[in-house]
Amino acid sequence: MKENPIIYYGGDYNPEQWDEQTMEEDMRLFEEAGITIVTLNVFSWALLQPSEDTYDFTTLDRIVDTVTKHGLSICMATSTAAHPAWMARKYPDILRTEFNGMKRKYGSRHNSCPNSPNFRRLSRNLAGALAEHYKDQKNIVAWHISNEYGGACYCENCERAFRIWLKEKYKTLDALNKAWGTNFWSHTFYDWDEIVAPNLLSEHIDETTTDFQGISLDYARFNSDSILQNCVDERDAIREVLPDAAVTTNMMYYFKDLDYQKWAKELDFTSWDSYPRYYTKPASVALWHDVMRSLRHGQPFWLMEQTPSVTNWQPVNRIRRPGEMRLWSYQAVAHGADSVMFFQMRRSAAASEKYHGAVIDHVGTNQTRVFREVKALGGELQKLGNQTTGARTPAKVAILFDWNNWWAVEYSSGPNDRLRYTEEVHRYYEALFEQNVSVDLVDVYADLSAYQLVIAPTLYMVKPGVDEALKTFVKNGGELIVSFFSGIVDENDHVTLGGYPGKLRDLLGIWVEEIDAVPEEAPNAFTYQGETYPATLLCDLLHAETAEVHATYRDDFYSGMPAITCNHYGKGKAWYVATASDHAFYQQFLKDRIEECSIAPVLDTPKGVEAALRESEKGTFLFLLNHNKTEETVLLPHGGLDLLTDCSYAPQSSLTLPAKGVAILKK
Amino acid sequence: MKENPIIYYGGDYNPEQWDEQTMEEDMRLFEEAGITIVTLNVFSWALLQPSEDTYDFTTLDRIVDTVTKHGLSICMATSTAAHPAWMARKYPDILRTEFNGMKRKYGSRHNSCPNSPNFRRLSRNLAGALAEHYKDQKNIVAWHISNEYGGACYCENCERAFRIWLKEKYKTLDALNKAWGTNFWSHTFYDWDEIVAPNLLSEHIDETTTDFQGISLDYARFNSDSILQNCVDERDAIREVLPDAAVTTNMMYYFKDLDYQKWAKELDFTSWDSYPRYYTKPASVALWHDVMRSLRHGQPFWLMEQTPSVTNWQPVNRIRRPGEMRLWSYQAVAHGADSVMFFQMRRSAAASEKYHGAVIDHVGTNQTRVFREVKALGGELQKLGNQTTGARTPAKVAILFDWNNWWAVEYSSGPNDRLRYTEEVHRYYEALFEQNVSVDLVDVYADLSAYQLVIAPTLYMVKPGVDEALKTFVKNGGELIVSFFSGIVDENDHVTLGGYPGKLRDLLGIWVEEIDAVPEEAPNAFTYQGETYPATLLCDLLHAETAEVHATYRDDFYSGMPAITCNHYGKGKAWYVATASDHAFYQQFLKDRIEECSIAPVLDTPKGVEAALRESEKGTFLFLLNHNKTEETVLLPHGGLDLLTDCSYAPQSSLTLPAKGVAILKK
Amino acid sequence: MKENPIIYYGGDYNPEQWDEQTMEEDMRLFEEAGITIVTLNVFSWALLQPSEDTYDFTTLDRIVDTVTKHGLSICMATSTAAHPAWMARKYPDILRTEFNGMKRKYGSRHNSCPNSPNFRRLSRNLAGALAEHYKDQKNIVAWHISNEYGGACYCENCERAFRIWLKEKYKTLDALNKAWGTNFWSHTFYDWDEIVAPNLLSEHIDETTTDFQGISLDYARFNSDSILQNCVDERDAIREVLPDAAVTTNMMYYFKDLDYQKWAKELDFTSWDSYPRYYTKPASVALWHDVMRSLRHGQPFWLMEQTPSVTNWQPVNRIRRPGEMRLWSYQAVAHGADSVMFFQMRRSAAASEKYHGAVIDHVGTNQTRVFREVKALGGELQKLGNQTTGARTPAKVAILFDWNNWWAVEYSSGPNDRLRYTEEVHRYYEALFEQNVSVDLVDVYADLSAYQLVIAPTLYMVKPGVDEALKTFVKNGGELIVSFFSGIVDENDHVTLGGYPGKLRDLLGIWVEEIDAVPEEAPNAFTYQGETYPATLLCDLLHAETAEVHATYRDDFYSGMPAITCNHYGKGKAWYVATASDHAFYQQFLKDRIEECSIAPVLDTPKGVEAALRESEKGTFLFLLNHNKTEETVLLPHGGLDLLTDCSYAPQSSLTLPAKGVAILKK
Repeated sequence: MKENPIIYYGGDYNPEQWDEQTMEEDMRLFEEAGITIVTLNVFSWALLQPSEDTYDFTTLDRIVDTVTKHGLSICMATSTAAHPAWMARKYPDILRTEFNGMKRKYGSRHNSCPNSPNFRRLSRNLAGALAEHYKDQKNIVAWHISNEYGGACYCENCERAFRIWLKEKYKTLDALNKAWGTNFWSHTFYDWDEIVAPNLLSEHIDETTTDFQGISLDYARFNSDSILQNCVDERDAIREVLPDAAVTTNMMYYFKDLDYQKWAKELDFTSWDSYPRYYTKPASVALWHDVMRSLRHGQPFWLMEQTPSVTNWQPVNRIRRPGEMRLWSYQAVAHGADSVMFFQMRRSAAASEKYHGAVIDHVGTNQTRVFREVKALGGELQKLGNQTTGARTPAKVAILFDWNNWWAVEYSSGPNDRLRYTEEVHRYYEALFEQNVSVDLVDVYADLSAYQLVIAPTLYMVKPGVDEALKTFVKNGGELIVSFFSGIVDENDHVTLGGYPGKLRDLLGIWVEEIDAVPEEAPNAFTYQGETYPATLLCDLLHAETAEVHATYRDDFYSGMPAITCNHYGKGKAWYVATASDHAFYQQFLKDRIEECSIAPVLDTPKGVEAALRESEKGTFLFLLNHNKTEETVLLPHGGLDLLTDCSYAPQSSLTLPAKGVAILKK
Repeated sequence: MKENPIIYYGGDYNPEQWDEQTMEEDMRLFEEAGITIVTLNVFSWALLQPSEDTYDFTTLDRIVDTVTKHGLSICMATSTAAHPAWMARKYPDILRTEFNGMKRKYGSRHNSCPNSPNFRRLSRNLAGALAEHYKDQKNIVAWHISNEYGGACYCENCERAFRIWLKEKYKTLDALNKAWGTNFWSHTFYDWDEIVAPNLLSEHIDETTTDFQGISLDYARFNSDSILQNCVDERDAIREVLPDAAVTTNMMYYFKDLDYQKWAKELDFTSWDSYPRYYTKPASVALWHDVMRSLRHGQPFWLMEQTPSVTNWQPVNRIRRPGEMRLWSYQAVAHGADSVMFFQMRRSAAASEKYHGAVIDHVGTNQTRVFREVKALGGELQKLGNQTTGARTPAKVAILFDWNNWWAVEYSSGPNDRLRYTEEVHRYYEALFEQNVSVDLVDVYADLSAYQLVIAPTLYMVKPGVDEALKTFVKNGGELIVSFFSGIVDENDHVTLGGYPGKLRDLLGIWVEEIDAVPEEAPNAFTYQGETYPATLLCDLLHAETAEVHATYRDDFYSGMPAITCNHYGKGKAWYVATASDHAFYQQFLKDRIEECSIAPVLDTPKGVEAALRESEKGTFLFLLNHNKTEETVLLPHGGLDLLTDCSYAPQSSLTLPAKGVAILKK
Repeated sequence: MKENPIIYYGGDYNPEQWDEQTMEEDMRLFEEAGITIVTLNVFSWALLQPSEDTYDFTTLDRIVDTVTKHGLSICMATSTAAHPAWMARKYPDILRTEFNGMKRKYGSRHNSCPNSPNFRRLSRNLAGALAEHYKDQKNIVAWHISNEYGGACYCENCERAFRIWLKEKYKTLDALNKAWGTNFWSHTFYDWDEIVAPNLLSEHIDETTTDFQGISLDYARFNSDSILQNCVDERDAIREVLPDAAVTTNMMYYFKDLDYQKWAKELDFTSWDSYPRYYTKPASVALWHDVMRSLRHGQPFWLMEQTPSVTNWQPVNRIRRPGEMRLWSYQAVAHGADSVMFFQMRRSAAASEKYHGAVIDHVGTNQTRVFREVKALGGELQKLGNQTTGARTPAKVAILFDWNNWWAVEYSSGPNDRLRYTEEVHRYYEALFEQNVSVDLVDVYADLSAYQLVIAPTLYMVKPGVDEALKTFVKNGGELIVSFFSGIVDENDHVTLGGYPGKLRDLLGIWVEEIDAVPEEAPNAFTYQGETYPATLLCDLLHAETAEVHATYRDDFYSGMPAITCNHYGKGKAWYVATASDHAFYQQFLKDRIEECSIAPVLDTPKGVEAALRESEKGTFLFLLNHNKTEETVLLPHGGLDLLTDCSYAPQSSLTLPAKGVAILKK
């Protein structure tokens, strides 16, 4: 895919909800605000296809013509995220069956069964027809398949497809019975047709409490694959007509159901929708930007949606304070985004998203704070031009992040139901983020050779080959951190026998004998580098075999047993952190590791001021982002030119950022 | 309908659960207690109609004869609030389908689908048969249709009826698609039969979280209308035989599902069942009494049910303390009730209401505290005779209360899910209540000409004509208070474009640019008349256009923006309160408005002592109700005769009320 | 049934999940650990019966041969607690229907409908085939039917069976209508087929909130009976082949659904699975041991399952601290257990119980703390031999415990939804436990003649004859304690009219006029023996008729009314405690009663040290159990020989128990 010529600026635009005059007014206001792209046709299937035999592009043609006439680029959606009512009536099999076993009726969105033959045929056909109809529309710069894919279905079509998926994976029932461990609880399957979907009517007590981890895990994989197949269906239909189309679909924040690492391979670029809550930490959003960037090995991604002001669907929809929209837009760019896009361009007047913020509010004018902020940012982006586009983030630290592990950890029955995989990842990420250390969040099969430090938080599931890859990494001089409840199972959620952490035992030089779940009200503690920190959630009770002990538990019968160990292995080191602790611990521990690895933080900044780097042949760009409500001053050892203000800073000079302020320094 | 000859005193009586001897004992005890009316036949359908072809009035005849012989009046219920088991088996379509889509089986009560043709036919027939059978029974003073109507059904019969209801309302699918805004999320309907009921299987995530406000709103209206039609079916069947029958149905406390304002038009008088919790404030109950009185423009209503001692269905069923039953009975009368009635007369021995209090307890004697209190009140009511019956409440203040608005506000997706319409109404009502200001709670189309102050809390939905009515009211010298999140949508829940508060913008002289949701933990504040009050829940960010600013926000980026404004409009004033605050604020603010309007409170009383007025040609009656646990002294500027004690009070004398005490002064 | 020759030591063993080599290793480790018994075949139906026409005992034969060769005894399970997948596909009627009305699909365990004719036939046949196949296997010392029976079904087969059960019970619909009180809410049944199961689709709002107590109560009885019939089916099939087989099924902790008192009559001995939480009090477990022992009149029971280290299914699965497994094993023995058994012998590698502790951990060696503790205990038990087996607990105190009462109290609509029957029982039990007083927990028809003190906490339902039995007991000199909300209903949940506590009124010499529910935030209080205690949950407002008043309420309008009374009746006394209070009250009150009755505690011990007694012709055994985390010293008035250490203690000498320590003194 080609690099973006500019940072695209615009967003979801639904003029089919309005009359022609309003659209003309929109054009005027978009121009004023510096808008360069619109995402069209996100939810128009019912308009485009009033019946099975008819396509009607009249309205969309009018919209495309208008925005084209006004010089806007188009991100063309395929409209398949909500099927028409007539289709549900004609083909009831396109309706999802819920996790509780109830068959849905027509309504809402994300309402289609991914394995409905009718849905697959009709959605593929629509994508193809759109590509055919707009194949000569040169300002379509991207194709946006469906919208925020998600959900799962448990209908009979899905069960049939699941059996086929299983046959392809396991070939024989013997292999399947072994993988699922069906001698447990008399679950032996003698015929593929005996297999049903794991849900509230069969194996589950709630979403994550299952009686058969193997079945549930495979269904999670199957579901992600099924929906991905819908996406691939449409992508292929588009590519048949437009082999060079740039295809994406917009992903979501910490979305567990879909294995985006597998998905990203099928897309030309990744994009996502960022909707933090009013209390969300900047580090949480940054983490997900880094996941998105890492999905395709550092290739810039699109910020496909954010709100210019307010969401409608959160319990308390606080408006973004002045400057926050700009700050968070630049945070996306700082982490690798080559677009800044909104949901929505004009605030709809009816139905459930009418209180979701927009560039143009219900008042319909440019006389709003929000419009003024959008317009100001538009001007800045115009000024930035293509300077930062295509630039990459140089990272020496990688955190392993794995969807299969996420599923498996949280399906686990025991040891502590408060364990959340993403929280364990976040603990380590946040400490690095606050030290301005660039981080990639990579899959477990990523090439680790370029990294100096790799962190594997709660790597519960060790897929085939992952242990070797980690050993090679450490052997060659890398530093590895693994945290508690790691190395426990293989890809089928079978425990690796012979002592935890299984295939990582010799690498880490430890044996974990027992795992204690820690009640919230009664934490243990350990001392590291002279400071005492709490030990919470889980405490692995381990024996150092070849590892050195760097901290021990303070309390209880396992007082004195190791809490932190480090094993020298080849030219590198493998650390083990046997419990969860508080923020202060991770800050200190990672500071020490970063120093040990001689990894240079991007910049030393005051607390709350983020520094991030992008580089390309066009230059090196230092983003300074002040998340505080107060002015902050940053010392610039190397100086640079602030692309937003054209101020030039000499080496060792200081730059003062206002509250929520941003600077982009080109070295 | 004729005025009650006395304050009817009695309640629900179910002798079909007992033998003849017990009924005779009841008669003796009723006479002792001064009981004058019994409600019969509330749940006897299965007894009355053992099969489709047979009515059997034997038991009811026996009961009617007995109570008649003992001089009691009868409130005759129609028994249709619970269908017989045989009927559910024979006609499964009479069983409701739940909000989650599950078809019910036989059981419970309120169990009938309102659109079941079989239910409609059989219930209408029963009502007609009862009227026919008892047409010459002179002591039937009222007909009580069904019981505590409620619930909703989502079956296919309802869906069919919904489509017919929609066709009548919208005529064309085009009009419907426009009203519902179906270009949103690809919802265009091309055939009426594509429309399904909005519930957990289609548009809803929970009871109030819907993806399509327009559909859910129409279903709420349709459901209220459907059940009302059941009521009208039965009323008509009765009127066919007895054109002069006085027909009612018993309504419930803060009951959201049924638009009682529409219902009241079809009834001859209103009645309701009051079951406060042990922690319910007197103001909350008073508010609902005032709603009930206002439903039929001040006509006296019936207190159809209350407990003489205890409920059984609340989590903690605290017994009413001595004096409370009497106090709360007189509170009902003070607010317009012409009856004081109980559920239940004799405590049942089996099933789910056996721990609900009764006049005659399980011990079966007159030797209980509760019986003694009932008897004492009976004596007092006998003494009062017909003095207060028919009297009206003179009010100069009206609060607008609208069921459609209630539904729409709480279906709204955003801005703050803690927003509750009735709480916003209650904030204003309570402050007036505590100042002894008489208030009507009127529908939005009420004649406002007699009022000096009209309050419209969170008038989110402005139905056609309502803006003009409010303007006329203010233009002519009235004072209006509107609170935040008002003027937002029309009757279809479409936003009124061009700036909030839409059609009220010029009347209020403001433009609301943004709406901020306030987290509970981080309130803003404003200063009014020198005092600082919290700003919570929502803060409208507004610009005074022609209005004066009376208070501004203290904190955050909108510090200094108006929080309270007042617009001079014609001869009147229109106030806007842009946020929610605490009790102290509403007390002060409404005190100021009351003074400004020269509205005289009923009386100046100590805190916790309520004063309320009723007037008729028979006199003016001042009710004094001491809700405190301590004795209180009230100064009487005008004096009067206490009808309960026969004590006469000279002007400027004092009257001392014991804890929970009551006085009724006739001027 | 014969007395156990030793305290059986072992547990659930599932070698079908492993290869032969692993089984050989297990044998070596079992021998090292002193294991003497294994429970086999708990979940192998799918392996044993791959299709309807085929049994395949190959795997089980191999296992049986191996364990037999190694001298182990066998507890042979029947494998029917989870049916095979093929069976669910072939006979869908074996699948349960949930309380919400949803039909289940294949999955999980405890998944069979008890009234499915196919399930009944196939499970009975399997039990019979197992008995036939292993009839000559001499080391099978017990048959273990199914596993942890539980759950309820609401399918049409169950409804049909329910009608038959009702016909047998009531003979006529008239009798049924009367028992259920169907004149309430128009529920009269005219045909048996009109009756449906009471669940979320009919009478229930949630599990314990029902609109018809009578129906729900009968369904609870029916469900317990239905599942019991499954158990009896299998028992009979085994007895047909092996008339002398010792048959049991493993019961569960505080399990409400099954009337174990009725069940125990059908078994040869009782057994249960003990899984306390990390915060469970020793008294709670002891109470249930005593229930289990009392089910069959003091006959020793088996501790069928406990974890050697950790559970997997609790929210926070804290590992058992060193010494706790041993301590709790001996607590079971102290209360009457003649076995100490574990789930599980080897930790499974897959599916949902893989993080449940085991004798042999995933590491697979004897080098774990847990194995060492198991082995140490194994050595001790070997040393103990048969000394304690068969011994009985001599108790002079009985607490009545009744499943029907449990159901009825918690189905009750009102007065306070925080009322829990087992908590009321526990209040009294715990105070006795802490004073080392031996207690039986007997059914309401138990022979009371041997007891000096009988306690009936919240004896809400008085079944026929129970009042007479209690009167006889007191008349003959016994002391009785009854607590609030007693004597209210008969066996059909009909209120006994004429004044609470109904049939116990003259025995207790009181009349309860009203029952007040007490909000948590506003307790009342009373003074007993000079100390003031809180009055919570419910306060009965009562009049002493012939009883003496020993405490009165402090607050509110019923200040001065009796809170505790005592009635002299015949040669005995009948106490009434009209409210719930705190732990300190029950300790003092029961101390006084114990002294009054001259009941000797087992021993006076420091707080946290439990003393319990077992006796047989082989001797008297005093168990001392230190539940504290600190060493404690106990004075031994009579001395004795500690069977665990062979230390001999002279009378009046002291014995020091380490933290979690145990001694067994033979007198």
